[in-house]
Amino acid sequence: MHQDIPQLSTNEEVMFFDTDIGGVVHNLAYLRMIETCRTKLATEVMKMPLKEMADSGNFPVVVSTDVRYHSPATLGDTLSIQGGLSLLEKARFWVEFEIYKKGSDKKLISCKQCLALVTMPSGRPQRLPQSWREQWPTLCK
Amino acid sequence: MHQDIPQLSTNEEVMFFDTDIGGVVHNLAYLRMIETCRTKLATEVMKMPLKEMADSGNFPVVVSTDVRYHSPATLGDTLSIQGGLSLLEKARFWVEFEIYKKGSDKKLISCKQCLALVTMPSGRPQRLPQSWREQWPTLCK
Amino acid sequence: MHQDIPQLSTNEEVMFFDTDIGGVVHNLAYLRMIETCRTKLATEVMKMPLKEMADSGNFPVVVSTDVRYHSPATLGDTLSIQGGLSLLEKARFWVEFEIYKKGSDKKLISCKQCLALVTMPSGRPQRLPQSWREQWPTLCK
Amino acid sequence: MHQDIPQLSTNEEVMFFDTDIGGVVHNLAYLRMIETCRTKLATEVMKMPLKEMADSGNFPVVVSTDVRYHSPATLGDTLSIQGGLSLLEKARFWVEFEIYKKGSDKKLISCKQCLALVTMPSGRPQRLPQSWREQWPTLCK
Repeated sequence: MHQDIPQLSTNEEVMFFDTDIGGVVHNLAYLRMIETCRTKLATEVMKMPLKEMADSGNFPVVVSTDVRYHSPATLGDTLSIQGGLSLLEKARFWVEFEIYKKGSDKKLISCKQCLALVTMPSGRPQRLPQSWREQWPTLCK
Repeated sequence: MHQDIPQLSTNEEVMFFDTDIGGVVHNLAYLRMIETCRTKLATEVMKMPLKEMADSGNFPVVVSTDVRYHSPATLGDTLSIQGGLSLLEKARFWVEFEIYKKGSDKKLISCKQCLALVTMPSGRPQRLPQSWREQWPTLCK
Repeated sequence: MHQDIPQLSTNEEVMFFDTDIGGVVHNLAYLRMIETCRTKLATEVMKMPLKEMADSGNFPVVVSTDVRYHSPATLGDTLSIQGGLSLLEKARFWVEFEIYKKGSDKKLISCKQCLALVTMPSGRPQRLPQSWREQWPTLCK
Repeated sequence: MHQDIPQLSTNEEVMFFDTDIGGVVHNLAYLRMIETCRTKLATEVMKMPLKEMADSGNFPVVVSTDVRYHSPATLGDTLSIQGGLSLLEKARFWVEFEIYKKGSDKKLISCKQCLALVTMPSGRPQRLPQSWREQWPTLCK
């Protein structure tokens, strides 16, 4: 039942609302793009049914974000956001992202995020599904 | 029991994330500022307990927004957002906003919004509280 | 040289950051989706080179937005944003948008926006390109 | 000429647009609040004239953000964002932030950011002003 490590690449064209008066993409806009990539990684690749989870009161929650801004993008650029699952702990998992201009190998952004599955509104963390550890044993700590 | 018409003025300094590559405030940023003014108008002046409403599943919901962008603001400006309740119908109410640079009488933005009280998740609209009509009879249609 | 009326449809999956505590998509998130559709309509269909325009200091600027919120979307929905050019005046043009859940004909949102081409930072409006009137004569006022 | 270490505390009421369907404040909303605190720290305490800097093409740019999400806030909470300058290098400086519910000593968020002064659009980093090192010698590396 071992499977390939979950990875996904999304594209985003830089919009006016992504930029600021400095003429480049605002630091928070990259994190919104990373959230879109992360959510599609969860729903399309890891087969997490977000809406069912929301209905049941269980949510993937960001525990930490570490992001490095290496080089800026600007209006008219198309960005490639490349993400993947990198580590499974008992109650937490790690995902990593890199952003490039499409067709270039110059890294603009790198980002590492830790998430937990949490029951709302109590805020109680849950164990990750056992099926994850079985599917991706090479990612287990 | 008649009371003054509910009105409130809030201030916002323009931040980098409010601007875009055109060098001025992005059209959506003004609407976020208007939502902050509208929410404080509701909680501080009209005494709507938002958190209680949320807990009970009843929410004020925007039905329509008409906004005119007359003149732009930019980084470093402090904006005065001036809002007020303008009309009470049976199940809907209207609020109006104008945005100025602080200390100037040049109108930058004008905005009119219609809201309803809605029970979520059913989406069923509710009658406005009778106490509103009694407090602000001059606003009733 | 007459051409089809410029129209474009984009898709957006509803993300966590699009929703609020009411359990549905926040009113400002739809306007961000509409801006993405409008920008792609400009670049892909109307062949406006946004980056060149930005470099030259000429920007399409939103003059007004009228938006009606008919019915809500929520997490997990995929939305179809359908936009088109609807009217050309001398210095202004109008675009209209409707948002549907993908595969449904129930209209969630309708929106009409007026834009102008403006030279920044002077803020001086420009005449629309003559080529627009020649390409889409049926849209001219 | 030694001065107190630059510190500033700002308050933010949680708005609908800060929350998501999970019923708590979205992870990106805290970072927007931190940017507001950081910008006011720069303009009000460190006396950096942002608008002049923007006009001259020199901008403070975020190089990295490390943020930890300890505990969530929700609609109706008032948050206290407490920030300060923590380290001066030759071309970079570090700022640190903590977010609390107003009147509580339970830490919700902690965040560390590294910034550089950069000339746009060339992207060339500048040395920090010598006056900073003289004003805050205890922060120099």
